[in-house]
Amino acid sequence: MSELLKAFETYLKANLPKAPSFHPHYEKALGEMLLAGGKRFRAALVLAAATGFDENGASKAMSVALAVETFHTYSLIHDDLPAMDDADFRRSAPTLHKSYDEVTAILVGDALNTHSFSLLANAPLSSEIKIKLVAILAENGGARGMVLGQALDCHFENKKLNTQEVEFIHRAKTGRLIAASLQMGAYAGGANDAQARDLYDFGMDLGLYFQIRDDIIDATQESAAAGKPTRSDAHKNSFVTLLGIDEAQNRAKAEAKKLREAIAATQPTSLSIALDKALGGYLLP
Amino acid sequence: MSELLKAFETYLKANLPKAPSFHPHYEKALGEMLLAGGKRFRAALVLAAATGFDENGASKAMSVALAVETFHTYSLIHDDLPAMDDADFRRSAPTLHKSYDEVTAILVGDALNTHSFSLLANAPLSSEIKIKLVAILAENGGARGMVLGQALDCHFENKKLNTQEVEFIHRAKTGRLIAASLQMGAYAGGANDAQARDLYDFGMDLGLYFQIRDDIIDATQESAAAGKPTRSDAHKNSFVTLLGIDEAQNRAKAEAKKLREAIAATQPTSLSIALDKALGGYLLP
Repeated sequence: MSELLKAFETYLKANLPKAPSFHPHYEKALGEMLLAGGKRFRAALVLAAATGFDENGASKAMSVALAVETFHTYSLIHDDLPAMDDADFRRSAPTLHKSYDEVTAILVGDALNTHSFSLLANAPLSSEIKIKLVAILAENGGARGMVLGQALDCHFENKKLNTQEVEFIHRAKTGRLIAASLQMGAYAGGANDAQARDLYDFGMDLGLYFQIRDDIIDATQESAAAGKPTRSDAHKNSFVTLLGIDEAQNRAKAEAKKLREAIAATQPTSLSIALDKALGGYLLP
Repeated sequence: MSELLKAFETYLKANLPKAPSFHPHYEKALGEMLLAGGKRFRAALVLAAATGFDENGASKAMSVALAVETFHTYSLIHDDLPAMDDADFRRSAPTLHKSYDEVTAILVGDALNTHSFSLLANAPLSSEIKIKLVAILAENGGARGMVLGQALDCHFENKKLNTQEVEFIHRAKTGRLIAASLQMGAYAGGANDAQARDLYDFGMDLGLYFQIRDDIIDATQESAAAGKPTRSDAHKNSFVTLLGIDEAQNRAKAEAKKLREAIAATQPTSLSIALDKALGGYLLP
């Protein structure tokens, strides 16, 4: 996978959004959070799924991976705004509203949201596939998906929810974009609807696991290691505040086991191998 | 045109974004600014172009018109945020950050931005046409288009620009989405690339005219008549601050004349008639 992610970084750097004008920093700010790095987890999922179905699928899926990464980056920029998490740094870099101002952070987020769809529309795939990708990203990243999850998460800060409600929030906020990444990669690699749907369902479970894992990192890791402020979720409905740290860790282990088993059972074998390469490191016992 | 716009209102009310959950107001807020009205100018342009090329084009273009109106509404919600125009009301209704909170206004704007692409992806048109529409909306509404215009407009508040720079801003901020609306409607009605491109170019001139007209309204009309705060652009690079009110009015008249002539010369005749119906009232001598 590290080969693919190296190729992705090169592709990203060569395909930053362009917007020449007499604005002193807007164009630079557009690419800044994309360049700041991060795990590229969603991009890796797109590429893993695409290569799992087509060993040469990565080149066709590269702009799809960039679209998903661009969309995710918009969401981080807006989540970090003063009205929401009010975070000073992200991906070990200052947030845009700190480097520039709130207007820049709002507008760059808006632009990246929209730009994701431009990347999909211009991908080297058939119109039939591309319009499916647009529908999947818009449905899972939009009003009923990721944004709904964020709205719930913000609204119920400092208000206690039950496990079912917390799971609903995190499936919407994190799970749906992770699931969509796998489904989109599958289509880019030539999968049929049933295969793409299976990967979507696997992605929803994967998303839940990652949210629990993220909540544990937030509760236990130092900021510098995480690349963003930690210990910040104590007033939020995290799995750690809900279950306690021990139970959250047990739950994470159980979910990781289920995911490893699902990967082992995945067909075709090329997909099982690609998923294991992309995810194995995150799913240690 | 009023028949078509009545049908559009019915369609809009029946197709508000849905996002059921245990959030107390998120789903209602999603539709609130769409329902608040407005001129539906961009929707009217989509429908005029579509029916200009295909007398039965309106039904196929309805979700395209709603996509453009949804996208425009997202931009208004974000433009009104405290960090930008800090407006208390819009379309004669309280802005979302006033009715609820800033988080809701940011997230509803984000959701509507993304939702526009969902509407395009699910329109009753071929994948080839739909992916063109996605590309046009994303290119003109995104990083290099409307958002760039807004970024420039905000950044150069209180800083004097020349006519060329002010025109650049407003072509990006207003012109490109208006031009895109006509181009998208043309494609929905079955136009070829050259026809769609001609309408786009006409739309860029139309957008400039509307910006001048809007600046005159802001400088001269009472708030209640405009449905939004007026007299608010004195510190902005409006055409009125740049040219003075008399010269701005002369320029508006000259642009209106050019546009009337362009409409009269437009082929096919059905398109000329549709444009005149949609725009005639705005282009009086």
